[in-house]
Amino acid sequence: MDIQYPLELVGTLVFAISGALAVRDREHDLFGAGFTGFITAIGGGSLRDILLGSYPLVWIGDVNFLYAIFLGILLAFIFPTTLLKLRKTMFLFDTLGIAFFTVLGVEKALSLGVRPEIAAIMGMFSAVMGGVIRDTLTNEIPILFRKEVYASACLAGAILYLVLNYFGIARDYNMLVSISVVISIRLIAVKYKLSLPRLD
Amino acid sequence: MDIQYPLELVGTLVFAISGALAVRDREHDLFGAGFTGFITAIGGGSLRDILLGSYPLVWIGDVNFLYAIFLGILLAFIFPTTLLKLRKTMFLFDTLGIAFFTVLGVEKALSLGVRPEIAAIMGMFSAVMGGVIRDTLTNEIPILFRKEVYASACLAGAILYLVLNYFGIARDYNMLVSISVVISIRLIAVKYKLSLPRLD
Amino acid sequence: MDIQYPLELVGTLVFAISGALAVRDREHDLFGAGFTGFITAIGGGSLRDILLGSYPLVWIGDVNFLYAIFLGILLAFIFPTTLLKLRKTMFLFDTLGIAFFTVLGVEKALSLGVRPEIAAIMGMFSAVMGGVIRDTLTNEIPILFRKEVYASACLAGAILYLVLNYFGIARDYNMLVSISVVISIRLIAVKYKLSLPRLD
Repeated sequence: MDIQYPLELVGTLVFAISGALAVRDREHDLFGAGFTGFITAIGGGSLRDILLGSYPLVWIGDVNFLYAIFLGILLAFIFPTTLLKLRKTMFLFDTLGIAFFTVLGVEKALSLGVRPEIAAIMGMFSAVMGGVIRDTLTNEIPILFRKEVYASACLAGAILYLVLNYFGIARDYNMLVSISVVISIRLIAVKYKLSLPRLD
Repeated sequence: MDIQYPLELVGTLVFAISGALAVRDREHDLFGAGFTGFITAIGGGSLRDILLGSYPLVWIGDVNFLYAIFLGILLAFIFPTTLLKLRKTMFLFDTLGIAFFTVLGVEKALSLGVRPEIAAIMGMFSAVMGGVIRDTLTNEIPILFRKEVYASACLAGAILYLVLNYFGIARDYNMLVSISVVISIRLIAVKYKLSLPRLD
Repeated sequence: MDIQYPLELVGTLVFAISGALAVRDREHDLFGAGFTGFITAIGGGSLRDILLGSYPLVWIGDVNFLYAIFLGILLAFIFPTTLLKLRKTMFLFDTLGIAFFTVLGVEKALSLGVRPEIAAIMGMFSAVMGGVIRDTLTNEIPILFRKEVYASACLAGAILYLVLNYFGIARDYNMLVSISVVISIRLIAVKYKLSLPRLD
């Protein structure tokens, strides 16, 4: 799929931007912002690959990912106000990003021979753990505990992909459907302020 | 040892329950609680195996551990009040769990050929790091900094196991003694509110 | 280089001391302080080696590092007041430590065949991530977000080492120059309270 590789790079760039801008209101200098952008961009995929024992890590084996991250950080430095004004656009990109990385994470895990249950978890981890590590470093309550239906949308999309895959749906079609479902769940949850019930 | 495998699964289930219930008083939805239960259950063993480079991780290679975790989270969702009323029972299970995982962690590290000093640390990490990661994610002061004689009881048990092992004590007997010592230290410390001195 | 190995051990010891003393003002008992010292000393190098898939980790393969850590923790326990009075000395040791570990981390990464861009990041990670993990565990804002020109000095030194290396400068001379530059940047930044601009 010719479009997949550039999409991965763009997704990584978007994660780097969101990470760098996340510390804008706090006591961080430019370096701290860049560091946070970097960790956000590499965190999820690195954790997935370390758990699976899959080396080299993507960004270590392919320098283009590193350049995508640097470019994202640079954009965050040069156009912070513009990017923050584009909050809706950024939100859409982030939603697209987590949806896309969920499916890619599932596929990578499957290609390494693990069971579907594990692949579903790895898909979700790929998408959200960069943000979780970012929030832990900046002493925030991790995103998946705060945001409406965030990681759970990814998990739902991962499971859907696995079910469709099990029934022999073609990969491209499956990707499109699963990614769309993650995006739809997330957008609907945010629009109508839906959230899962609490434990009490 | 026929009893070891089911005990490992039960220990994993208990960790998942304690993790899921840990976020009950906070602003977490069901998914957040399940996520925390999951991380608590896999954290210690995963960290041990990643540090030792031992792949596949236990819960990735054997799906029964995943099912034990899902069952634990499910129980926490269905019976939260009952389980919290059973606090004393849960506390005993947790104490049994850390004692048991300490010894298993030591044995696994030894089987991978590391020195006893490393095996002692790996035993303790297996037992307590799931809780440490849980507390870090939920912005709590990590359990081992708060609770009376928690990780130190595990370390003491790990060292005892290694000493008895060095003197040729049979494995089953050694396990029983070392686990009992961890449990005794912990129970006595909690009952009499003992704690180690501070650094001042 | 005969002097490198003992320097690595001393650097590890200093990191263990600084970690153990870091929790002195908080509600930590001796065990918590020792645990924090341990994590601080192993954190950066372990993360670097896990990201690079380089096993065994240094402190697991060579027990002398473990003894250096234990000695550092013991010194922190016995002489906490003296060591805290020696704050300036400790600060110099810490600065020497991060400078030294930066260059060693770069060299290790290069020896594993990664690209220079990756090696620069690994050098910085070796030096600062132990402190970042320490601060995350103790719920502090991570050091690299607080301190004047801390991780950025390491990154500058790492890049300098790689540039000089590219131009064929002899290793010993390169190490000396790069380490000196990290130290100089850090000392000047602290003395004149310099900091990088913020993102706003």
